[in-house]
Parts: sequence; C-alpha cells; structure tokens
Amino acid sequence: MNGAESLLRSLVANGVEVCFGNPGTSEMHFVAALDSVEGMRPILGLFEGVVTGAADGYARMAGKPAATLLHLGPGLANGLANLHNARRASSPVVNIVGDHSSSHARYEAPLTSDIQGFARPVSHWIHSSSSALTVGADAARAVQASMTGAGQIATLILPADTAWSQADAVASALPAPAPARVSDATIEHIAALAQSGVKTAFLLRGKALQGAGLRAAGRIAAKTGARLLCDTFAPRIERGAGRVRVERLPYFAEQVVEFLAGTELLVLVGAQAPVSFFGYPDKPSWLTPGGCRIAVLAHPHEDGAAALGALVDALGAQQCVAPLNSRVVDDLAPNGALDGESIMRSVARHLPENAIITEEASLAMAYSGLSESAAPHDLLTLTGGAIGCLMPVSIGAGIACPERKVVNLQGDGSAMYTVQALWTQARENIDVVTVIYANRGYRILANELKRVGARTDGVHAASMFDLGNPSMDWVALARGMGVEGVRVESGAAFDAVFADAMKRRGPMVIEAVI
Amino acid sequence: MNGAESLLRSLVANGVEVCFGNPGTSEMHFVAALDSVEGMRPILGLFEGVVTGAADGYARMAGKPAATLLHLGPGLANGLANLHNARRASSPVVNIVGDHSSSHARYEAPLTSDIQGFARPVSHWIHSSSSALTVGADAARAVQASMTGAGQIATLILPADTAWSQADAVASALPAPAPARVSDATIEHIAALAQSGVKTAFLLRGKALQGAGLRAAGRIAAKTGARLLCDTFAPRIERGAGRVRVERLPYFAEQVVEFLAGTELLVLVGAQAPVSFFGYPDKPSWLTPGGCRIAVLAHPHEDGAAALGALVDALGAQQCVAPLNSRVVDDLAPNGALDGESIMRSVARHLPENAIITEEASLAMAYSGLSESAAPHDLLTLTGGAIGCLMPVSIGAGIACPERKVVNLQGDGSAMYTVQALWTQARENIDVVTVIYANRGYRILANELKRVGARTDGVHAASMFDLGNPSMDWVALARGMGVEGVRVESGAAFDAVFADAMKRRGPMVIEAVI
Repeated sequence: MNGAESLLRSLVANGVEVCFGNPGTSEMHFVAALDSVEGMRPILGLFEGVVTGAADGYARMAGKPAATLLHLGPGLANGLANLHNARRASSPVVNIVGDHSSSHARYEAPLTSDIQGFARPVSHWIHSSSSALTVGADAARAVQASMTGAGQIATLILPADTAWSQADAVASALPAPAPARVSDATIEHIAALAQSGVKTAFLLRGKALQGAGLRAAGRIAAKTGARLLCDTFAPRIERGAGRVRVERLPYFAEQVVEFLAGTELLVLVGAQAPVSFFGYPDKPSWLTPGGCRIAVLAHPHEDGAAALGALVDALGAQQCVAPLNSRVVDDLAPNGALDGESIMRSVARHLPENAIITEEASLAMAYSGLSESAAPHDLLTLTGGAIGCLMPVSIGAGIACPERKVVNLQGDGSAMYTVQALWTQARENIDVVTVIYANRGYRILANELKRVGARTDGVHAASMFDLGNPSMDWVALARGMGVEGVRVESGAAFDAVFADAMKRRGPMVIEAVI
Repeated sequence: MNGAESLLRSLVANGVEVCFGNPGTSEMHFVAALDSVEGMRPILGLFEGVVTGAADGYARMAGKPAATLLHLGPGLANGLANLHNARRASSPVVNIVGDHSSSHARYEAPLTSDIQGFARPVSHWIHSSSSALTVGADAARAVQASMTGAGQIATLILPADTAWSQADAVASALPAPAPARVSDATIEHIAALAQSGVKTAFLLRGKALQGAGLRAAGRIAAKTGARLLCDTFAPRIERGAGRVRVERLPYFAEQVVEFLAGTELLVLVGAQAPVSFFGYPDKPSWLTPGGCRIAVLAHPHEDGAAALGALVDALGAQQCVAPLNSRVVDDLAPNGALDGESIMRSVARHLPENAIITEEASLAMAYSGLSESAAPHDLLTLTGGAIGCLMPVSIGAGIACPERKVVNLQGDGSAMYTVQALWTQARENIDVVTVIYANRGYRILANELKRVGARTDGVHAASMFDLGNPSMDWVALARGMGVEGVRVESGAAFDAVFADAMKRRGPMVIEAVI
C-alpha cells in the first residue's frame, strides 16, 4: 500500500464517498489508487471552480464533506472563489491539493508556487503532509476539521512522494466533533426576552432552517408573535408549501432597513446581524435598526436547531401551531410575457415534490417569494457573492441526492464563469434543469452603477455590462458540452417546456430570453 | 475629479492604454471613469482568468503593462492561475483589484476576504490605497514596479471610497526603471570561457530571444561553435525562416538529459538552469549534466540582450554569420492523416509573415521543430504550467498587435479552462485562428500516469483523463460565443481550411479531430 492508497482508504473509513477532481501529473498516484480502493466515487470537472463548487453543493445536501483533488497551486487557485463561497456556506470540504515531491520542491519548477499562501484565505485548517506514513492520519484529521462547528474548509496538501512512497496503515474513523451546546442560561435569557412584549424577530441560518430546527422556530413564532427571518443568501432553506414560513431579507441595504423597521429585538440563531452586501457613499452598512437590541441564541458554531428546541420547551410552546406556507397553484398561471415573475410562477407551479432549487440570478432572487407556494423543496443560494457558484453546486446537490430534481435558476453572466459545469452534468447524467435568465447583460451592475452615485451614460461603461455583443447562444453552448438545450421567448412557451422538463430526467438547459 | 478618474488618468500618463476587466459593484466608479478619461481602452472578459491571461499576452507582445480590473478577492482568485503564468513569463502587469470601502470592511460582508493574502503568491509588489489623494501616485508606482527587472506583477488594491472620494491630482510619469547592466568583468569572464574550447551551450530567455539580442547570440554561436538553446516554455521566441536557429529544450527530464549530454559549459542568459517540470520517483530533477560548468552571463533581471551584444564585441564576432532557419516549404505538404505532425506541417506551410503562434497543446509542442521553417513569427508558450493560458494570451497578443495574425494551437482539455476567451475574441474581433487538437482527453496525463510508475488499468483512473464521454463539440461551443467554427477530420481538409483561414481576418475555431 502506498501513501495514496492509505489516504484514500482513510478518507473512506472516515465517511468520505465522493471525490470531485481535476488532477495533474503530481496527483497520478492518487488517481491510480481510485481503482484499487473501494468506496470512493471520482467525478471529473473540466475546471477547478466546478470541482470546488460541486463539493460545496454536495456538502450542503449531504451534510458531510466530499474530497476535492486539485493540481498544485494554480489548480487550487482556480478553485478558490468557490471555496470562498463554500466557506461562507459553512460547508464541510476536504480540499486535497497535490504538490511537487519534497525532493523537487527546491528547484523552482514552472508550477512551483506558495500553495499554503493560496489556501490560507479560504481554509480553516491547512496541513501539508510530510510522509506517506502520516498521510492517512492527516486525512482523518482533515475530515474531522471539516466537520467542526457548522462546517469548515480543511486543506490537505499532498507532496507527490507522500503519495508514491510506502505506507503501512489506514486511519480509522475519528469521532465527529460534538456540536457545541447552547447553555441553559442562554435559553432562559432568550425566553425571557422573547416574552417581554417587544417586537421580536429571529434571524435563522444553518440547521435552524431545516427539519426539527425550523419546526421549533415555527412554534416559537406562533407562541411569541415573533417574525422568522433568514438571510438573503442562506446556504440551504427548507421551504415551499407545508413548511414554516420564513421571511427572506431583501438584497439592497435600504430595503433591509425598511424591512426591519420597528424591530425591537433581533435574536440571532446561527446568523450574523445583517449588513449591506456592499458599501455605498450614502447608504448604511449596518442594517439593524437603531435602538434594536441584538441577542444571540446560538453562534454559527453552536447547535442552533437544538437551541430552538430547548427554547420551545422553555416557552411552553410544544403545542403551538406554526404558520405554514400554503400551496397556491391557481394564482400561478403564466401571464403572456417572459420575465422574472412569469418564470418563477411556472417554476412554482410545476416544481415536483422534494426538488432542490439553486439560485444565482438577481431576477430569480427578486421573485423568490412566489416559490414559497411551490411544492416543498430546498433552496440553495450564493452565500459568498463569488458568481459562478450554483452551476457546480447543482452538480454536487445532484450527486448527494440523485433521486431529487435540481432546478438551477441561473443568470447568463454568472453561468459563464463556470460554464464547464454543463459537461460534468452530462457525463454524470445529473438530473438538473438549468434555466438561463438570458437578459444579455450584467443587469445588476447597470443598476449598481447608479446606486453608487457614479454618473455616466458613456459607451465604455455600458460595454462592461453588455453581454449582447455578441449574444451567447445557450442552446449551442449546452450542445457543445453534451446537454440538450431549448430556447424559449414567451411565458407560455417557458411554462410548457419547463413543465415537460420536470417530467423527464437528466440534464437540460432552458434559455429564457428576457 | 474623483479617485477613480485620478487613477485612470495617472495610468494613462504612465503609458497604460488597455484595461482588461471584469468589474463588480465595488469597481463602478472606475467603470464610470472609463468614459470621462481619454486614452484607456476597456476590454471585457467573462471570467477573470481571461482578463489576467489577456494582460499577460498583451505584455509579452507590447513590452509594457496593461491594467486589469478585478472584483474583490474572489475576482482576483479567479485570475490567479494566469497571473502565475504571467509571473513566470516575466510579464509586466498592473493588476487592479477593487475592495470594499474602508468603512464597510469591518462588517464581514459576504464578499469580504483577505485580498492581500490572495495576491501575495503571484505579486512582486502589493499596495492597498488608503486615500483618493494618493491613488494616482500609487498607480504610477504600480506601473514602475511592473516594469522593474524583466517584468513584474504589481497588484494595486483599490477600496471603493478611494475611487469615489475627491482627488486633486494626476500622477505624472515616473521614470522607467533602467535595465540592470551586466558588468564588463562578467563579459570578459564569459568571453574567456566561451573561447576555452569546451563544448558550450547558451541558454537564452527574455530579450535574448528577440531582435538584436537573438542576432548577437547568432554571431556568438558562429564564432565559438556554441549551441543556442531556449527553454521548453519561453515567454516569447522570435523564430521561423531567416531567424537565428535556437534549439528548444525537450519537455521530459530524460529527453533533456540526452539533449544536453556532453555539454561542458552552460551559459545562462536570462534563464535558469534546466530542471524537470515534475519530480518523478526514479528520474532526475536537476538536468544539467554532471561535470558541466554553469556560468551566468545575465540574470533574469539584467539586460541579457545588451550583454550578448557586448560579448559579440569581446569575441570580435561582429562579422560572423549566424546559422539561420531556412524556409522549406516543399517538405511540408500534408500527408493523409490528421495528427500532430500534419497539423504542424500545414501551419508551417501557410503561416503568414509576422504571425504570432500561441501554443498550449502537447502535440503542438512535440512537432514545434517543423515550424522553424515557417515564415518568421513569434512563438508564445505556457510559461507557468497552469493550463487555460494561451486562449486569453491570444486575445492580449491580438490587441497589442492588431495587424498580425494569431494562430492558437490549443489542446481541447486546456481550452476548456478559459473557454470564455472565445466570446472576447468575437466581441473585439481579434484576428485569431484557434486550432483545437481534439483528442478527447488529457492525453499527457495518460502518459504521465505510466511515467510516475503508477500501476492501474482501471476505469476510475481512465475516466479522469477521458474527455470523450461526452465529446465536446467545438463548432457548437464557438458558435455559442459568436465565433465561427469548422470541424475537420483529415489532413487534407485541415490543410485547406487552415490555408483559407490564413487569408481571412477575425476569430475562427478549427476543431481538428485527431
């Protein structure tokens, strides 16, 4: 057994089942080991942003890490933006980066770089293995690190000689880090505050937006009259008909200020107090209303779902009935035009039970309220703002949940960053329908230009937002990577094509020209 | 005048004429300033690797920097791999990265990250502007830093408030750093060594492979009988018929050892002593023959071309006639099959005068000797090993030299990393013909798997090299981004299509199925 086999067997022993990779020469022994070790499914991405984004999506849905396999510093560099998003999503990722063999490192070969330097800004944990004898144990520690708190990025750097040299052990499973428990005193404190008669909102994130946590939050809202809120960009939200209704914070600072106006107590459950996405010359960054008290029920690394359950008990709210989203199909018939609203009406109307929506289009975000009445589903969003995220996240979600339909609501601009994701969707036959909001532009930037107070009506600035010269042909791009594509130009056509797509399986692209 | 205008005017005053960008909200004032400031041409890339790769290509051909414009840490992260390549090419780049406004930085908004941390591994110079009053001067210093030595990466971080606040000055041009002169003592020392009768080779890089430097090297070779060599991956080489013949080092370590066997003196001119690209369990990393003396005529930061000129004088070689490449068109008729050899024969046959070849395909590298008899041209290669480089480099080369035809010899695997480059080629009507070596695989990795001694014939490993399931359709991909594409499957068809392409202008893709 060489180091690569020890590494792979140790990953498998620690519960890692999937490796998204784009390897090079320095990772060849790892690649070879994929055939001698049972239990690891390798999935190729044609660009490293696809690899790391897929690992993020897998983690969000599986609740445990996939491994990546990246080629030296530049391969890692290509995957950094989606690791940034994964970090903001608190996704556990075991990020494996090959390195030159230790004897080769000193020669400053062309691909030599500061791998730890590249890794540091996105990694909670970094280790470079020094021997084939330790690499299995290092892998076990990386898995454990990735599962610490709400989920972390653990980067394991693997010099080629630690893969090809002789190893003699497989690391057995390390215990998963126990979730941090919120103290009884905190529960009692928040219970007292929540019953003090002030206008209260709970801002939920992480497990608090899923399953038992979300149901507990619903009971608390029913008991106390508090609002339930979630971030504009939560990693994962269980929503749709029959689920506890949670209000999503709007995107722009001034909208959030209005949205939160009158709130006297903001209780954080795995979330941070809301701040503006960007700073503006004349708009606030800090969005909690003046005079509003902020209290923390659970920090992000703590078990927010359990804390909500304990708070239900403390409030005596076990029998309270939460306000639930209802299914409103009749209101959702498509109108004539094809626009953000009609697309979301069709999505809500036809979405099958237990689907996963991945959202990376400002026009999808703007109308996401409409899908609250869709069949129950999970919503995954762009947590870190680094666009090019949800195309690969859709891959990972589909790998983690092969029986669930994935609907990716995707801007044309953002889709281009990791357009290579379509190829992996084709190869792995991911059951994902990608809706391209083809507005031929970075539409949000044209708005932001005005919002930041920049004054121009010139052609140079406009050219930086315009994707219409030339227009991308998404049917051709999809076909180029082995995915079927359809272009639609009316609300009725979209409704029919989308409805049909929901009944089929496998990857598909719908270019919605808006 | 705000800070953004001060910055742009200062860049223009310091000779920067082109800005490759992919901006976001935090760079909107910079974008607006593009319309109020004369003399800066903005070019949009749909992915940041396109932006930084284009800046590299521009620098290699223009001999001065372009600016980039990148959006915060993740935008920079997406551009890092091609900045790594640019660094290895000694390309001057003024890398401008927007940041949150200083008042917003503390709020840990979703896009907040350690920008300096991301920048450090690829940057020779980093500065974060602290005021709109200094940003023009900072820009001037960045340009100067980029032009220091053979060329450097200067990263200027621009908080949004330094762009939108009031500024009052434009920085005038700083003096370009004077090239470092090689001492007379060194010239005399090398002259004596080169006449000592030992088997000598000069390894040339940078300006030593262009113009007067290359012609001087030719005279030295004629006088002393020394071999002239260049790295496998030199940033830019003037070659083709009528140019001084330089032998290109082969790629694999054992080939280099054989290639250099018998060399008793290796003189470095802007180059490092050759090392293996990767480390292998049973192959050498250090490739200079045992007993061979290494002498440095010029370090990379020194003026190697001038040193060669001085060496010509010291040797009395002014009248010596260099061995030149000859034009051998008759030998280049296409054979029947479409393969690496027949493609290169057609390229050499039809390449117009003064073209630029950009090379990122192992099969192009293997047959590059054939193009020594093509019409005189420049060859740009993959200096840093981070694939996804030459598609965007071709953009930059085309922008720098709009009157010259660019021929991009590109692997299908590597093309996918920055496939978005095709869109910018279409928008800017770059005169580039991209030949895709469509072998449906990471063919070099299948070879490397054996070379590193990894043993497998399993399906998992094979799947990591296979791009044939599904096959990319490059004609569709090109059309999807507004570029005309043609698929060819025989040597004769390629020859005809390529010959025709050389007579037209504008971007085109030829998918060569091999």
